[in-house]
Amino acid sequence: MPDPKPQPAFVLIRPQMGENIGAAARAMWNFGLDRMRIIDPRDGWPNQKAVAMASGAGRLLDEAQLFDTTPAAIADCDFVYATTARPRGLTKPVFTPQAAMQDARARIAAGARVAVMFGPERAGMENDDIARANAIISVPVNPDFPSLNLAQCVLLTGYEWRREAAPVEPVRVDAVADWAEQIEIEKLASHFEERLETAGFFFPQAKAANMKMNLRNLWSRMPLTRADVQILHGVMRQMVRWKERG
Amino acid sequence: MPDPKPQPAFVLIRPQMGENIGAAARAMWNFGLDRMRIIDPRDGWPNQKAVAMASGAGRLLDEAQLFDTTPAAIADCDFVYATTARPRGLTKPVFTPQAAMQDARARIAAGARVAVMFGPERAGMENDDIARANAIISVPVNPDFPSLNLAQCVLLTGYEWRREAAPVEPVRVDAVADWAEQIEIEKLASHFEERLETAGFFFPQAKAANMKMNLRNLWSRMPLTRADVQILHGVMRQMVRWKERG
Repeated sequence: MPDPKPQPAFVLIRPQMGENIGAAARAMWNFGLDRMRIIDPRDGWPNQKAVAMASGAGRLLDEAQLFDTTPAAIADCDFVYATTARPRGLTKPVFTPQAAMQDARARIAAGARVAVMFGPERAGMENDDIARANAIISVPVNPDFPSLNLAQCVLLTGYEWRREAAPVEPVRVDAVADWAEQIEIEKLASHFEERLETAGFFFPQAKAANMKMNLRNLWSRMPLTRADVQILHGVMRQMVRWKERG
Repeated sequence: MPDPKPQPAFVLIRPQMGENIGAAARAMWNFGLDRMRIIDPRDGWPNQKAVAMASGAGRLLDEAQLFDTTPAAIADCDFVYATTARPRGLTKPVFTPQAAMQDARARIAAGARVAVMFGPERAGMENDDIARANAIISVPVNPDFPSLNLAQCVLLTGYEWRREAAPVEPVRVDAVADWAEQIEIEKLASHFEERLETAGFFFPQAKAANMKMNLRNLWSRMPLTRADVQILHGVMRQMVRWKERG
């Protein structure tokens, strides 16, 4: 049966603090990932500190699969990535998170089962575990300060999974925007021009044409909504009313 | 003098817990960013919990610039992004973190000063602050679980900044324009607000705050040059002069 919601499993190797397991669950669920595997957690399982930290993503902990060893945890996987900042002399392909998640998506689309392994806090991943991975994911951090914690590493990987999953428009303008039409901009420009003419703004005469053009160009360059246009009409009307009240 | 290490400033608006300020400093420095600005931190400054959490990135806290208000913190900036998951009815361009950092890089390459604002924990950013931004950064999170904390938001933005680190040519044709700085937009907004207040524009009282926010948002959304700002000041000054001539 095809997986209804294909995604990589995230495998936490011997995590130490429950808080970090909970934070990792949150980070996964932030990006719609919910298949957590945990290898030999230091403080046993279940872990109340993990539950407390996971608030809102607790379901991932309830459904997490527990394993004693790395080989057991990845036994059913076709391709496994190890996230580690420091490839230590093992010859392996090294991916950025972006390239890795592109690669993972292609593999999963082709029917492969994929996992991403995350090492324990502090100690980092052991070479024995790295050796079991098919490829390495290395986050391009500041070489002077490469310390990412477990949940951050999960967050960035999950972010890249989703970024590749839901290709959004690079820039979208708020969908609710009700842009003004040209005729409305034209009327706005004319309104200001007439009132400013009356108010003696276009002075001296020799500069008037240029001043008018600059003002008109200003309005037409602005990304104005209908509401903006109404506000600006209101501004000018009010200044006139104020004047007329004397 | 050209900036030897051009980068966006990261502005923390009224952060609450010191730990989060420290974690944000770490997340910035993970990706080589070190210009932090802090607006009115709840627990004062310096903050020992921030220092403890920042370990290794403490220099950012030592060098952080403190401000009382949002306008003061972004006064010298040419372009400001607000990171918020929920654009609330304000019309603004919305960028993914990737698109925003591409945009920021191009602007910075063209000589602009850029800032990214992050709201307080829990409460999130206030509309008054969002209204001062030129654009919004929205992380494409799982809509069923969109809760990113402050340091995570900083981390993803910093990650995208560094991922885009390959130097790019400024792509915008209008890069040569002499864009108004935030302080100039702020002064323009205040000028209009004061005069319109006098003229009785903000009526009825119950709607005044919202009307002011919408007007302020209008100015900060517009791609205004210095010349535009001068024209708009001139418009308002002239309407006042006209009134005063009686």
